[in-house]
Amino acid sequence: MRTTVSWQADGPSATLRRTPLKRRDLRPDDVAVRVDFCGVCHTDLHAVQAHDEGQPLVPGHEFTGVVTETGSEVAGFSVGDAVAVGNIVDSCGTCAMCRAGQENFCHAFPTLTYGGVDRHDGSTTQGGYSREYVVRSRFAYPLPPGLDPAAAAPLLCAGITVWEPLHALGVGPGTRVAVAGLGGLGHLAVKIAVALGADTSVISRSPDKADDARRLGAHDLLVSTDPEQMAAARDRFDVVIDTIAVPHDIGPYLHLVAMDGTLSHLGHLGPITLETTDLLIGRKRLSSAGSGGRPATAAMLAFCAEHDITADIELLPSARVNEALDRLRRNDVRYRFVLDMSDLD
Amino acid sequence: MRTTVSWQADGPSATLRRTPLKRRDLRPDDVAVRVDFCGVCHTDLHAVQAHDEGQPLVPGHEFTGVVTETGSEVAGFSVGDAVAVGNIVDSCGTCAMCRAGQENFCHAFPTLTYGGVDRHDGSTTQGGYSREYVVRSRFAYPLPPGLDPAAAAPLLCAGITVWEPLHALGVGPGTRVAVAGLGGLGHLAVKIAVALGADTSVISRSPDKADDARRLGAHDLLVSTDPEQMAAARDRFDVVIDTIAVPHDIGPYLHLVAMDGTLSHLGHLGPITLETTDLLIGRKRLSSAGSGGRPATAAMLAFCAEHDITADIELLPSARVNEALDRLRRNDVRYRFVLDMSDLD
Repeated sequence: MRTTVSWQADGPSATLRRTPLKRRDLRPDDVAVRVDFCGVCHTDLHAVQAHDEGQPLVPGHEFTGVVTETGSEVAGFSVGDAVAVGNIVDSCGTCAMCRAGQENFCHAFPTLTYGGVDRHDGSTTQGGYSREYVVRSRFAYPLPPGLDPAAAAPLLCAGITVWEPLHALGVGPGTRVAVAGLGGLGHLAVKIAVALGADTSVISRSPDKADDARRLGAHDLLVSTDPEQMAAARDRFDVVIDTIAVPHDIGPYLHLVAMDGTLSHLGHLGPITLETTDLLIGRKRLSSAGSGGRPATAAMLAFCAEHDITADIELLPSARVNEALDRLRRNDVRYRFVLDMSDLD
Repeated sequence: MRTTVSWQADGPSATLRRTPLKRRDLRPDDVAVRVDFCGVCHTDLHAVQAHDEGQPLVPGHEFTGVVTETGSEVAGFSVGDAVAVGNIVDSCGTCAMCRAGQENFCHAFPTLTYGGVDRHDGSTTQGGYSREYVVRSRFAYPLPPGLDPAAAAPLLCAGITVWEPLHALGVGPGTRVAVAGLGGLGHLAVKIAVALGADTSVISRSPDKADDARRLGAHDLLVSTDPEQMAAARDRFDVVIDTIAVPHDIGPYLHLVAMDGTLSHLGHLGPITLETTDLLIGRKRLSSAGSGGRPATAAMLAFCAEHDITADIELLPSARVNEALDRLRRNDVRYRFVLDMSDLD
């Protein structure tokens, strides 16, 4: 085993503490990654709040870094390569979904970057709030040159989560897209939709994000608390990307979808209740998305490099991780915290 | 006013009684229709059970008959023409949905064939369980020659309700379609899907409908109560048409949908609750449908005439309407009751 340093929740407290962490010795197809930057995702917050006392937890599933060692059979990476890792680190590789390059839908369930179960030794995976991660090389992605490694980290979870539905729904020039909620997911959805050529709007509870929406490239902002604006926008969008992270009524957002259009509901897991008629009237579709497969992740990174898209981040030394989680809980971030892990050395 | 005879619920009882009914004098764009055959839809059952004591109710919204009189400005119909009428008898005609030929989604709400509010005189519309109906000619459809008028009546509600999603979802040769629930809607969905060239399966609670499924043209039958069969069919269908008329968990049916495929939920109105992950894993879509616009209704009738598709019906004299509703409540019909209205003369 190897030893590194991590930010870990252990015991009853939701406070992360600096703690040594064991990593496995490299298997033939593993690479060891020095984690330089790790994004702070809403999922991390949920995981820390819900973590089991008896089960140590190291969050973090969107990170960038540098390869420091390669397993004996690794062909695609060399020591010194810049890489990125997302929220999936393994999958069965043989089911129909894996064969289709949709490892995120692996029928045997993908191995998550933290809180997952390693397919070889049965251990619980621990995440990227640490100075080193050992990962199967198949699930590390070359970080394209030109992308800032700190601001690129959130692409590996937030980025791919919004890329998947935009891509699957064929968003392109002229598609009328609305992004509901301007947070970590939403601001990347706007940037990517704009770069895809879509006529892009933002839907937000308050008008004070109008300047930000325009700066991100959106054409306008709809205020969801203004009934007149919402009524006037009925049936207006081919695609609505709903990134609102708390339980909410999706009816008002379905009203904005044009006939045969789709509402894609992201970032909030759990049950949804909807009125059949909200879906029926206007022949609308509901979908959901989260994460993506390997080919889509690689395509998203290439697209973002080509269009110079990264997240708008607030970079903090990793020692301020608890402050970051606390501010994220209060929605006080524009738009993603990224932890600089170099202070763990 | 004109006078005809109807089967009417009035007062506290859910029993329909033979009762005289007033119809309006013809407006310039109206036709008077002698109702020969009227289908018995689940909606009729709900309406009778829920009807308000103080409000007389004549159900019936899928009927065929013959034009007996035409308004002064009617050009498309002559006395003696065979016609069909469905569940919509008027709409605003000016909103985006009406202009797109989707009167069923009229933003000002379409006028329903019974229980609706007439757009001119504000009266409550009364349905086709009667010997005469007066309808705006725009919402009467020529009944194509060759279609049996009794067995064609259910096409006007059940038929168009299943046609819309099959058509909107682009079902054609090779599409893998499953129809859940083999009732009034389901058996027509199977016939139409087969005629569209789809590889069509039926999903039913019990294996005893296998012979019927095959007779209707389906390639096989999946038993929804057999966990092994359901597990083996995971991700198998591009389109699942869910016609199950009672509230149920849609999760098991979403499991059968292939990636980027759609579950279309028909025939049951009200809230649905679903787990986001059932939609997310495999990138599936949920839609709903009910009724259709004028162009789609005309296209559906032409398609059914070309492919010799009508409903499998049990024809009863209209005097047995209460027996029909009672048996429908117990699901004791294969697959649609149609009332013969000639006994009202």
